[in-house]
Amino acid sequence: MELRHTPRLYHEAALRQGLSVEPGTEQAHYLQHVLRVKIGDVMRLFNGRDGEWKATVAKLAKKSVTLTVHEQTRAPQAEPDLWLCAAPIKKAHFDYMIEKATELGVATIHPILTARTQIREVNVDRCRAIAIEAAEQSERLTIPDILKPVTLSDLVTNWPSTRQIIVCAEWGEATPIAHAFTNLLSSQAAILTGPEGGFAADELEKLRMMSQAIFVRLGPRILRADTAALAALTCWQAQCGDWMLSPRGTP
Amino acid sequence: MELRHTPRLYHEAALRQGLSVEPGTEQAHYLQHVLRVKIGDVMRLFNGRDGEWKATVAKLAKKSVTLTVHEQTRAPQAEPDLWLCAAPIKKAHFDYMIEKATELGVATIHPILTARTQIREVNVDRCRAIAIEAAEQSERLTIPDILKPVTLSDLVTNWPSTRQIIVCAEWGEATPIAHAFTNLLSSQAAILTGPEGGFAADELEKLRMMSQAIFVRLGPRILRADTAALAALTCWQAQCGDWMLSPRGTP
Repeated sequence: MELRHTPRLYHEAALRQGLSVEPGTEQAHYLQHVLRVKIGDVMRLFNGRDGEWKATVAKLAKKSVTLTVHEQTRAPQAEPDLWLCAAPIKKAHFDYMIEKATELGVATIHPILTARTQIREVNVDRCRAIAIEAAEQSERLTIPDILKPVTLSDLVTNWPSTRQIIVCAEWGEATPIAHAFTNLLSSQAAILTGPEGGFAADELEKLRMMSQAIFVRLGPRILRADTAALAALTCWQAQCGDWMLSPRGTP
Repeated sequence: MELRHTPRLYHEAALRQGLSVEPGTEQAHYLQHVLRVKIGDVMRLFNGRDGEWKATVAKLAKKSVTLTVHEQTRAPQAEPDLWLCAAPIKKAHFDYMIEKATELGVATIHPILTARTQIREVNVDRCRAIAIEAAEQSERLTIPDILKPVTLSDLVTNWPSTRQIIVCAEWGEATPIAHAFTNLLSSQAAILTGPEGGFAADELEKLRMMSQAIFVRLGPRILRADTAALAALTCWQAQCGDWMLSPRGTP
């Protein structure tokens, strides 16, 4: 089997040649009972820091699997410095947003509590598990950072001076997104999307006062919050991000 | 309440001022038991042909609702002539693809059976119901056409000469999507995406021989089939479609 068709697992600990590693209970279960691996089977491991490594199954016990790490198959590579700052929305759609944002190559996901945000609790561990699975499948070498929720007001107060904030606005003055992205000045950016009910008027006012803010419009239809986030991430990656490069693992 | 915050329903029959219309059983149930409408409540109706119309609740019976149609609130407007030709994928992800494609303003969704397509049956009525709900919420005036599945081979054989076909390719030579879309010649386009396992080599060969085909690349990560479809639709709309216009219903 070609290496790029072998299973690919996130393994948090250090990776280097000759190391023996033991995946956690869930991964061991997945390897034994879903993939049904045998001694000698090849897979790939990554930890978000050390690139990607070839590994083989060295030992199978009742509830554990031991892998031997071989050579590095890919050098470490970061994703573009793009954040998604998104108000949490209903669970299925928020899960989907995290999966898709990870595939689309976001570096950081920051849940933001706005005036109209109905969902005020975010299970960061659960979000991280979704992101890990999406990273494994999308051949990413990193896992996006999932931060704890903060209020929009705190976000604005502490906003880094060099990072552009791209506000997806349903109403009011805004630039068509493809235009806005033709000459962005900063390689540090964030997409900001509101909850189902949109931003409140005073929130938009506060955002409009930020010198780092760019208000963009995503066409004449009204998009759900998750669709808006994915569309804006896509446009940024296509025009300003790393979508000019060739696919990973290309022969 | 502002008109743009009133409920919006798809109603297949003709719409004109003074008409009495009776929504079907499911919509009547939704109006009575979810929205709990009262006599005189305002809503909006569209049928995909006659634009959008203001309507009010005229009569409430046990299992039916009668609405009176008032003035037209928006003139008819078609979506850009963009198709999505997509291999069916697992149900939850295909449902999501239809919802999102509708929001993103696709005109036609065409399920395509390829060599590696595992899901060979598509419930067109079910897909249409998802598209209708997404159209209602996104303020679209039309419902995308959902066609019956055809094989990729039939699709290629009968491909219209003036319509560009934008092939989302994981491997092989392809143009970064933002570049490909800077000077498209035709306003008739289709996005083509494969199943989970991608296109077979001979399928790609056949596609490469089409003069209308453009192979595009969606960045260095591997995207799921539904993510690829939505990303490509987004880029086309942002660069070649109607995303230069202002949002519908803007005051």
